Amino acid sequence: MDLRALCVLLPGVLSLRAVPPVAAPSTATRAAVTMQAPATAAPPTEGLRFMAADDASKLREQFGTPLFVYDEAGLTSQAKKALSFPNAYGLTVRFAMKALPNAAVLQLFDALGLHIDASSGYEVRRAVAAGIAPEKISLSSQELPTDLPELLALGIKYNACSLRQLSAYGEACGGARGDQLGVRFNPGLGSGGTGKTNVGGPASSFGIWHELLPEVKAILDKYDLQPARVHTHIGSGSDPAVWQRVAGLSLGLCEALPSVSILNLGGGYKVGRMASEPSTDLQLVGVPVKSAFEEFAARTGRELALEVEPGTFLVANAGALLSTVQDLVATSDDGFTFLKLDSGMTELLRPSLYGAQHPIVLVPDAAAERAPVPADGHKYIAVGHCCESGDLVTPAPDDPEALLPRALASAAAVGDLVVIEGAGAYCSSMSTKNYNSFPESAEVMLDPSGVGHLIRRRQPPEEIWANEVTYKAASH
Amino acid sequence: MDLRALCVLLPGVLSLRAVPPVAAPSTATRAAVTMQAPATAAPPTEGLRFMAADDASKLREQFGTPLFVYDEAGLTSQAKKALSFPNAYGLTVRFAMKALPNAAVLQLFDALGLHIDASSGYEVRRAVAAGIAPEKISLSSQELPTDLPELLALGIKYNACSLRQLSAYGEACGGARGDQLGVRFNPGLGSGGTGKTNVGGPASSFGIWHELLPEVKAILDKYDLQPARVHTHIGSGSDPAVWQRVAGLSLGLCEALPSVSILNLGGGYKVGRMASEPSTDLQLVGVPVKSAFEEFAARTGRELALEVEPGTFLVANAGALLSTVQDLVATSDDGFTFLKLDSGMTELLRPSLYGAQHPIVLVPDAAAERAPVPADGHKYIAVGHCCESGDLVTPAPDDPEALLPRALASAAAVGDLVVIEGAGAYCSSMSTKNYNSFPESAEVMLDPSGVGHLIRRRQPPEEIWANEVTYKAASH
Repeated sequence: MDLRALCVLLPGVLSLRAVPPVAAPSTATRAAVTMQAPATAAPPTEGLRFMAADDASKLREQFGTPLFVYDEAGLTSQAKKALSFPNAYGLTVRFAMKALPNAAVLQLFDALGLHIDASSGYEVRRAVAAGIAPEKISLSSQELPTDLPELLALGIKYNACSLRQLSAYGEACGGARGDQLGVRFNPGLGSGGTGKTNVGGPASSFGIWHELLPEVKAILDKYDLQPARVHTHIGSGSDPAVWQRVAGLSLGLCEALPSVSILNLGGGYKVGRMASEPSTDLQLVGVPVKSAFEEFAARTGRELALEVEPGTFLVANAGALLSTVQDLVATSDDGFTFLKLDSGMTELLRPSLYGAQHPIVLVPDAAAERAPVPADGHKYIAVGHCCESGDLVTPAPDDPEALLPRALASAAAVGDLVVIEGAGAYCSSMSTKNYNSFPESAEVMLDPSGVGHLIRRRQPPEEIWANEVTYKAASH
Repeated sequence: MDLRALCVLLPGVLSLRAVPPVAAPSTATRAAVTMQAPATAAPPTEGLRFMAADDASKLREQFGTPLFVYDEAGLTSQAKKALSFPNAYGLTVRFAMKALPNAAVLQLFDALGLHIDASSGYEVRRAVAAGIAPEKISLSSQELPTDLPELLALGIKYNACSLRQLSAYGEACGGARGDQLGVRFNPGLGSGGTGKTNVGGPASSFGIWHELLPEVKAILDKYDLQPARVHTHIGSGSDPAVWQRVAGLSLGLCEALPSVSILNLGGGYKVGRMASEPSTDLQLVGVPVKSAFEEFAARTGRELALEVEPGTFLVANAGALLSTVQDLVATSDDGFTFLKLDSGMTELLRPSLYGAQHPIVLVPDAAAERAPVPADGHKYIAVGHCCESGDLVTPAPDDPEALLPRALASAAAVGDLVVIEGAGAYCSSMSTKNYNSFPESAEVMLDPSGVGHLIRRRQPPEEIWANEVTYKAASH
């Protein structure tokens, strides 16, 4: 039995292993102690991941809340892990920039040798504006950009994600060698149930259904195209057996297209935000993938390079959302105690959208008037600042509308700092920004020496309505 | 048996009655014919609500897609309905601006005699910037604005939504008569189940729990405050019996506070977006409310004025989202046909967040190459343009992750126009704006003569990253 299996059997004992090993000072020590409690005890409270409590307080003082803080050391360490993905004949790691598209993050990853996966024509423009060389940008999008010919002329890589997109590429670049071209397939395998949203399988709209290979070939012939890449992405999770199957299916598609020299397996490397959730071990899932490439080479004589496109894996646990306790309200004796934050679905939509779980760490404000300990201990429902019943930070897992009280390390008070961990991926980039007219949050990069650098200033409220155009209705 | 009951019994026959009676030209006629099919037939396809197909096409030509279109006539007609809410001793209708905060909409409602319900200090500033007189703005917020004293000095009305907020008002305005002050209570009643997110009851964080009345009185005494209003909001729905109960509970709270002369019952008037969904009839739910006010006056001698705060009711069905079919992709024979739009959760989050249903009306493009009719008729899964499996426009009701194929009136083709109806409330204001770096959509007001006026220009993409600040990591 390996350590991973042991973690599953003994949650709370060894679960620190599931937490990305980023520097975790003072508070983490406390958390580690808590986590050694017997498995029968209440679930352990979470600790800070990459800041000490004092550092978090200083950042609040300097920049205000709500505030996103990203950990340069953590981003760097995850990038290095991704770059060591097992491979037989070369590897390109592309950052799925939709997870966290701030230019400072793109530039950091660029300097570390990562390339970019863009999900829209706009993301291509954004990456180019951040100084990323177009040759390092690959576009895989649901929406065909209206300016595709211009984007292609910049020199970007392009994955055709539908028959229509493949024809559009042919129209723009027919007769060219087509080595900037890839074809994204849906290999027929998904990680979720039938009829549920998914990134692979019959319930997924992403990529060209694998049985349409003859139609793909007809278009390639028509425009004299030699695609260099096959792309698949099914959200492969953390199970090596699933990875093996995906690699096998995808290599089968490569075999049918002789010009292909690169297989891109997309992203979807699940990462635990909570200490109790498992994370993908790239060294583990990569082994069968590497073997599959080697077997393919032995059989066909073709040594394919590997591309992967992690988003969450690179940034999820290297980001935190700093928030301030705005209010504490209680309902009846058999009701709840609500912790109202000065952030919410405007910064962190994942709990409302998926019932996603994020660690919540209380950093008590010494100056704050302390509320009495609630009857049920230190359990709170954390809610956001929008007038919206679904603006809930602590839902039940996978059930966004169910309230699940969360144990915090101490009683909360108005003015306390709350650090929401695991807020690097799909938080600042995917939120109900400007709902209730709240301005977009500021973002800070914490450098390895612990200094915070502003990488996005807080949005001036007037910008929210700056694009409105005056119209006086006739009925006025 | 009244007509409402008949609609429930015979869906598809009289269900047009459930649709707000806005002008619905040519296409609506076709829809009405479809809807007279026997109840055993497939569910009727939806028709356009306030535009003819030609008008929608012209708007696309003029402004591009994605595009929000609002119907001035429909907004006006809903405002007039709200202003006729049954009342005994005076009525103020406040538009819950978070539903659709564009200045043109605020100004239209202002001209029609509506006041404003703001949900954050930022919304107050936004309404003032739109020219709304501060005396007509009432603030009820989860988050205590840092500039509360300045906002109060403008002359706005204020509902204290927690004990802390009540004390904060006292600190800012103690000793004043306090007639700008209201107290928002949670009357202990909610329209949903226990432990689920709600706007009233033990599972709601909104307002002061009704059993805390003694604590409220102590704060009022301490600061010598005479609140003019009691505010409750429990999302009362369309059932007159529930309204009666809420009014009763709320009047009980008014009785305990002698200075109160206004009872505000909040919003939550459910409106059907789909033709098959019921809408609140204000004349119906208002009758028991009016009686309750009269009985209260007879018993106490106090003639209370009524305030209501509709959002959805005023704007939901007076807005549409125009989108263009980007692509059509199919998976296996037992799979799905996906209609890919050039909009999605970046404009319309309600389906992804709640499994909300919106009518989808296809306006075929005469110039488009028509796709063959799919095997299962004209049924499609509509998906958005984000690289996100949850970006789904046609989920199953209340199940955002389940795919539910939608019957459209004809086979779709790339280039067709798709009109998503019922997109006036909580669409442009509550979306994952800028996700995948898509710019914020343009908005148009359609005047009663059918002319579209731009009220928000499409966001220039560069604005998405304009607040970013350059930082060169040490590791570069």
